[in-house]
Amino acid sequence: MSGANRFGSRFGRGAPEIPPLMRPPAPHGGGEPLQFPTATTTAPVEVPEQPAEQPADLAADPAVAPTGAPGAVEVATGTEAPDEVLLGPTGRPTPEIPEPRPVSTHGNARVISMCNQKGGVGKTTTTINLGASLAEYGRKVLLVDFDPQGSLSVGLGLNPQQMDLTIYNLLMQRDVTLDDVVVPSGVPGMDLLPSNIDLSAAEVQLVHEVGREQTLQRTLAPAIEKYDVILIDCQPSLGLLTVNALTASDGVIVPLECEYFALRGVALLKTTIDKVQERLNPRLTVDGVLGTMYDGRTLHGREVMERLVEAWGDTVFHTVIRRTIKFSDSTVAGEPITNYASSSAGAESYRQLAKEVLARCLDA
Amino acid sequence: MSGANRFGSRFGRGAPEIPPLMRPPAPHGGGEPLQFPTATTTAPVEVPEQPAEQPADLAADPAVAPTGAPGAVEVATGTEAPDEVLLGPTGRPTPEIPEPRPVSTHGNARVISMCNQKGGVGKTTTTINLGASLAEYGRKVLLVDFDPQGSLSVGLGLNPQQMDLTIYNLLMQRDVTLDDVVVPSGVPGMDLLPSNIDLSAAEVQLVHEVGREQTLQRTLAPAIEKYDVILIDCQPSLGLLTVNALTASDGVIVPLECEYFALRGVALLKTTIDKVQERLNPRLTVDGVLGTMYDGRTLHGREVMERLVEAWGDTVFHTVIRRTIKFSDSTVAGEPITNYASSSAGAESYRQLAKEVLARCLDA
Repeated sequence: MSGANRFGSRFGRGAPEIPPLMRPPAPHGGGEPLQFPTATTTAPVEVPEQPAEQPADLAADPAVAPTGAPGAVEVATGTEAPDEVLLGPTGRPTPEIPEPRPVSTHGNARVISMCNQKGGVGKTTTTINLGASLAEYGRKVLLVDFDPQGSLSVGLGLNPQQMDLTIYNLLMQRDVTLDDVVVPSGVPGMDLLPSNIDLSAAEVQLVHEVGREQTLQRTLAPAIEKYDVILIDCQPSLGLLTVNALTASDGVIVPLECEYFALRGVALLKTTIDKVQERLNPRLTVDGVLGTMYDGRTLHGREVMERLVEAWGDTVFHTVIRRTIKFSDSTVAGEPITNYASSSAGAESYRQLAKEVLARCLDA
Repeated sequence: MSGANRFGSRFGRGAPEIPPLMRPPAPHGGGEPLQFPTATTTAPVEVPEQPAEQPADLAADPAVAPTGAPGAVEVATGTEAPDEVLLGPTGRPTPEIPEPRPVSTHGNARVISMCNQKGGVGKTTTTINLGASLAEYGRKVLLVDFDPQGSLSVGLGLNPQQMDLTIYNLLMQRDVTLDDVVVPSGVPGMDLLPSNIDLSAAEVQLVHEVGREQTLQRTLAPAIEKYDVILIDCQPSLGLLTVNALTASDGVIVPLECEYFALRGVALLKTTIDKVQERLNPRLTVDGVLGTMYDGRTLHGREVMERLVEAWGDTVFHTVIRRTIKFSDSTVAGEPITNYASSSAGAESYRQLAKEVLARCLDA
């Protein structure tokens, strides 16, 4: 449950403030062009046995990253790497991520929020598919739909508007228990706390409650001993529901679209996370930043990724989610892509992400 | 600027509480089947010269509507109507709506919020196209994007993430003026106050301000004398931004998807409107409920519309927005459908809605 992880990256230490407006990066400052393999996110590469050491100097220096000044480009290295070291899509050597260890007992769950106040960046898709991949690796997973729009519930094939009991009832009614509301997700080992528009009332009603920020934490307490991971899909806002999610969490995963201006708003997200950490929940750490909708075939896509790594260093997951992956079919199917198209590139990406998450903060 | 209108309908008087879970309606209680013409929303029909009198008894009785009991069906009449009276898609005779009067001077704007905490019900599409239709009728229109996701701005062809000045700056910085931020919309007579993800900060920052609910009202004050109508596109939430929008408004338009369960959450919306009216803004009235994504070809669609009228009476606009209308092309085009496909059924629907809005609360 500790926030420290084997990659040694935490927002609190290594991450700089991001200016609200992300400027397009300056042209590459000479030298050979960076190598960005585009075919795969998962190719194992030759790296030293202590992968945590290797990428540490790449871009994590807060003194140079925040301004986006041309001088910062030089730290986005890779040009000095030996020829045989292939760089991953993030421009860093991909470490060999250990196979997840089998587990025989369950409980002491790590609670992780998927958080970004921008909509459409992949929070729900990541929640569903990361959860399903962790379940494939034998973990007991609880997904929490914490968005009144209920898209996580819909994405798992439910019609949440037909439900009489949702997380809203669990939050607001003392006589409703976790077991009353939890439903199976269709994936073995993964359950769901569904949500619907009723939850929009909680935002209004909680404002006047004592301990309003800890309501979800109290609600989830009985689930901690039953599950290994609890993933919370936050609404695209930094309002009281999201503050509740962060207060209930051990970690945060921030999905970020690989687009210019994707970082607009991230400084505010970071400030919110810091405030919750300071005032409400000292154990909160950022487990990782996930680049989504990445297009390695375009200079634009690679440059944005370079900026992401400049800004966030090793907090950025080595795994990226590519734009070419089609999730729409699996949404229609109402199940994770790891079920619907088990051997697809999209399913593989999420299994890889699950391995990274396990290595960083669950098996560590 | 008065809330009274020629149709005599106001939530405060005629509208009942809606149970959070809308049950599918009971089977039709005998009598002839209702007539639902499906080809047009706009066919003029023979009605008495005082159209406001005719539909008054249809379904506005709060004593029978709220429970959804089978007995309530009998008030959804139409079966006794003379043969020559064609019923509109809402099941009521369509009154002849007067042509908007020409205007020579501008100012004293009516501020109207598009409000529903459910996403995807047509708030943004209605804001753009109602605004453009009102501009066609010679009104000076200001659209206010009050959703941090910026979809109204995107729908008018802007890239809001590239903007340095948005409504966020106008709200939070004393030295920024309306003229600094307003941009032309591309439609003659219609301007836009754009928004982007920066606005998500206002939600967090305003919480601690004195007069936090009146911030938008103060901000829009200088615009009142310049425009005839100000339409605010609210975010899908009932948080502080939406409360600000309601506090700044004279009227509310509630777009509602014509789907079972569409009314789930509407009781809460109604409570929120009532509270703002009581505590912050006594002049606030509901200008109308707009049925969207209506499919008159299915029994389901007609039944849901019947329930809407049972619940809200004459607050429901006679104009409905049909599911068959494709707005996606006009969204890609970055302009209203009234420009992009000026003679399409979608454009005609919004012109008809504009006439109704003008008759109800602008020219009245």
